[in-house]
Amino acid sequence: MTGPIDFYFDFISPYGYLASTQIEKIAAKHGRDVVWHPFLLGVTVMNVMGLKPIMETPLKSDYALIDRPRMAKLFGVPLVIPDLDGVNSLAASRAYYWLAEQDAQLAKDFAKRIFHRLWVDGEGITDADTVITEAAAVGVKSDSLRAGLQQDRTKALLRDAVDRAVARKVFGAPFFIVDEEPIWGIDRLWMLDHWLRHGSWDQT
Amino acid sequence: MTGPIDFYFDFISPYGYLASTQIEKIAAKHGRDVVWHPFLLGVTVMNVMGLKPIMETPLKSDYALIDRPRMAKLFGVPLVIPDLDGVNSLAASRAYYWLAEQDAQLAKDFAKRIFHRLWVDGEGITDADTVITEAAAVGVKSDSLRAGLQQDRTKALLRDAVDRAVARKVFGAPFFIVDEEPIWGIDRLWMLDHWLRHGSWDQT
Repeated sequence: MTGPIDFYFDFISPYGYLASTQIEKIAAKHGRDVVWHPFLLGVTVMNVMGLKPIMETPLKSDYALIDRPRMAKLFGVPLVIPDLDGVNSLAASRAYYWLAEQDAQLAKDFAKRIFHRLWVDGEGITDADTVITEAAAVGVKSDSLRAGLQQDRTKALLRDAVDRAVARKVFGAPFFIVDEEPIWGIDRLWMLDHWLRHGSWDQT
Repeated sequence: MTGPIDFYFDFISPYGYLASTQIEKIAAKHGRDVVWHPFLLGVTVMNVMGLKPIMETPLKSDYALIDRPRMAKLFGVPLVIPDLDGVNSLAASRAYYWLAEQDAQLAKDFAKRIFHRLWVDGEGITDADTVITEAAAVGVKSDSLRAGLQQDRTKALLRDAVDRAVARKVFGAPFFIVDEEPIWGIDRLWMLDHWLRHGSWDQT
């Protein structure tokens, strides 16, 4: 089996960011490609699942605060905890799909900058100007992206992507699907690795 | 650091069962003891956190059905999916704490039988007679346990244990606390192992 790994995330998820620093390495080790799929965690978690965001969930929110920095340490990558008040990933996710239609690698490079901006620099990613600036840094023409972001077609690209993620029963970030196996969570990279190595869940 | 590992679970959690098959091995490898703490997931998840049970949560319930058997495969242990309708762990958990006051090892042996009954044999664990029968199989006098289960003092033991778990911010099963580090989930045994080996979250 040599199909790609589908990697689902929301830019506003720190675990999504952490996964983005690891997934290409893991995939490359096993000769797989990775297709990145930003989606909107809020739509899935609140509208479809009827749950609250983690940071509004008693007990789990305390755990998340302890867990994020130690997870970054385990992966040896930087992580700050930014103020997420009012931050959303709508424009960045639309820009991603608009770019991905033209050049998948460029879209990934852009996604990495957005992750870096929020989770390493601790700066906002919400407004269109910011998204356009980050895209420009990887060579995207600002005027075309600005126009693209306003097209209904671009908005539909993201909406469809979110619908498809829900249809595939993706409900958290990061979420991986490989060879039809759904794997949820930054804490399950070992399972992803196991599957890629063995193609089964049997012990070895 | 040589303190024990606190292992929190609910008998009705399949992931709690799976963890019970692994935790003593992991602890022994690092010279640690394990203290078992059954608690009532329903009280924590529904009353304290305001969430729904996993199997009533869209998307996550589908995932759980796929995930349980493969997790059992990964650990090389048997697992059936019993009908959990009407099943609760109140009497079994009370019996556990009543026993643990007398003999911690005996209480663990009893807990293993309850887990086995539900998750390997696929049989109920709810009623007092069943709990008493399983306890008898590890040498517990049925009349004393029957009397014990009806004492307010025994009920208070469990209530206090659940309160203490919430106070320590335990919110899922399995949940481990070692050296004050909280670690949630069957998918994080690798983190527990890392901590026991290194006593830090630094990469190695």
